[in-house]
Amino acid sequence: MDSVTPELLSEHACFGGVQRFYQYDSAAIGLPMRFSVYLPPAATGTGADPSTGKLPVLFYLAGLTCTEETFMIKAGAQRVAAELGVILVTPDTSPRGAGVPGETDSWDFGAGAGFYVDATEAPWSGHYRMYSHILELRELVLARLPADAARVGIFGHSMGGHGALMLALRNPTLFHSVSAFAPIAAPVRCPWGRKAFGGYLGADQAAWRAYDATELMANSTNAPFPKGILVDQGLADKFLAEQLYPEAFEEACRAVGQPLELRRHDGYDHGYYFIQTFVEDHLRFHHRQLG
Amino acid sequence: MDSVTPELLSEHACFGGVQRFYQYDSAAIGLPMRFSVYLPPAATGTGADPSTGKLPVLFYLAGLTCTEETFMIKAGAQRVAAELGVILVTPDTSPRGAGVPGETDSWDFGAGAGFYVDATEAPWSGHYRMYSHILELRELVLARLPADAARVGIFGHSMGGHGALMLALRNPTLFHSVSAFAPIAAPVRCPWGRKAFGGYLGADQAAWRAYDATELMANSTNAPFPKGILVDQGLADKFLAEQLYPEAFEEACRAVGQPLELRRHDGYDHGYYFIQTFVEDHLRFHHRQLG
Repeated sequence: MDSVTPELLSEHACFGGVQRFYQYDSAAIGLPMRFSVYLPPAATGTGADPSTGKLPVLFYLAGLTCTEETFMIKAGAQRVAAELGVILVTPDTSPRGAGVPGETDSWDFGAGAGFYVDATEAPWSGHYRMYSHILELRELVLARLPADAARVGIFGHSMGGHGALMLALRNPTLFHSVSAFAPIAAPVRCPWGRKAFGGYLGADQAAWRAYDATELMANSTNAPFPKGILVDQGLADKFLAEQLYPEAFEEACRAVGQPLELRRHDGYDHGYYFIQTFVEDHLRFHHRQLG
Repeated sequence: MDSVTPELLSEHACFGGVQRFYQYDSAAIGLPMRFSVYLPPAATGTGADPSTGKLPVLFYLAGLTCTEETFMIKAGAQRVAAELGVILVTPDTSPRGAGVPGETDSWDFGAGAGFYVDATEAPWSGHYRMYSHILELRELVLARLPADAARVGIFGHSMGGHGALMLALRNPTLFHSVSAFAPIAAPVRCPWGRKAFGGYLGADQAAWRAYDATELMANSTNAPFPKGILVDQGLADKFLAEQLYPEAFEEACRAVGQPLELRRHDGYDHGYYFIQTFVEDHLRFHHRQLG
């Protein structure tokens, strides 16, 4: 990764720091991929840790139809990141321009819906390798930005909540804290997940389970995140009953002794008005855990 | 206006209050018009003024290409409005579906670019009456929501900054506080304003001056807002030199003794990363002035 220089597409001053949009040639995807970064004032000025100059970094994975811009422009997270001195990074949600027939026909499969898996089924397997892309992007960020490899958190929303929980559970030495907003917590059980995993991974459901947070948790031998996991869920979320299954993840956590704070919020739905309400809590949660 | 019942299109819990989107049949426009409202917890629960039950209300006018949703989803204002107990209202930026030939051909004229004037030139004069629409919407909000007619502020961005300054200067008994982000402060002098005013108002520039904040201020006999006006302007704003003219408005304020806090911010551009950085200051400015 060290040989890849991301191209800076744009930057915007924001809360004393800088909001940037980058593009680079992703080896994992085999296409140019965009991502966004918020660098707090501490990353650009006088506030970085004087011993290392490096700051905690949080990766945010977005949901269906979103891009690398969605969280940065809608969630209102930069104010808190500026205060805490945390770097934010958001990837895109799928390859763009892969040229797979039908990839833009559905809003819940293909473009904008990569589900953070490495596809094994043709024709998706050529470029739809978002699992590897997130790990690659983590390395790129650690190599190119003042981000501390020992303080890396991950969080996300809906499809991206699935991605964050799953990536953290598969890589607890690479991601040191994890939280989610309204995650697809048991994708092998829900229509969105079954459509995506069937399309990207094929009919063998053993392959699906390696990307399912509830299955991964249930198969843990002890609590993978002993400091706890935070999940916020709105109770007016129209996708809750059919698609999200937080109670399944909660039960899997209980069975292995994984501390989980699953907060159920009356009246809140699935969108960014919900996320902006609770995003400060998530940033403070990660900041406390990452130290 | 009392006979018009706005139709609630959607609502979303947000910071303990509720974000709503409405539509109603606008007499001023002659078409259905959408607007959005944020009601803080104080408007829905126990925090309203026990003597009247009414809260201060701020109207936000958005810029070119925006809708009634833009500010609500991008500015991060609801957190502060919830804390202060202020209602937020955002109209759309033009009629929609007026059917004027060519109305969607330009991003800076026609649909999404009503410039908050009442058009007098055919064919625009049939529906493009955004000046009257804002006054009508103010009445509707005061009649239908727990908003205090004695505590009404107005602010806006770019084209909407022009609209806010102009509407407040023409109606200082209806709007009691005013501020702006990167306003088109002297539209008769800049390409955006000259194109819009020429199209909507015709060739007679006397008509233009009645909608120009700098001209209105220069022709005041004393300070119309003695408590002061707040304007934020980014110095990396690519539209600053050609389109915005804050220095002309500043000079007009100085000439009539109008207190103006014009804050020039190094590095900030024209977008919502700039607005989200300073929106808290604007809400607190209005809240202090409205008492």
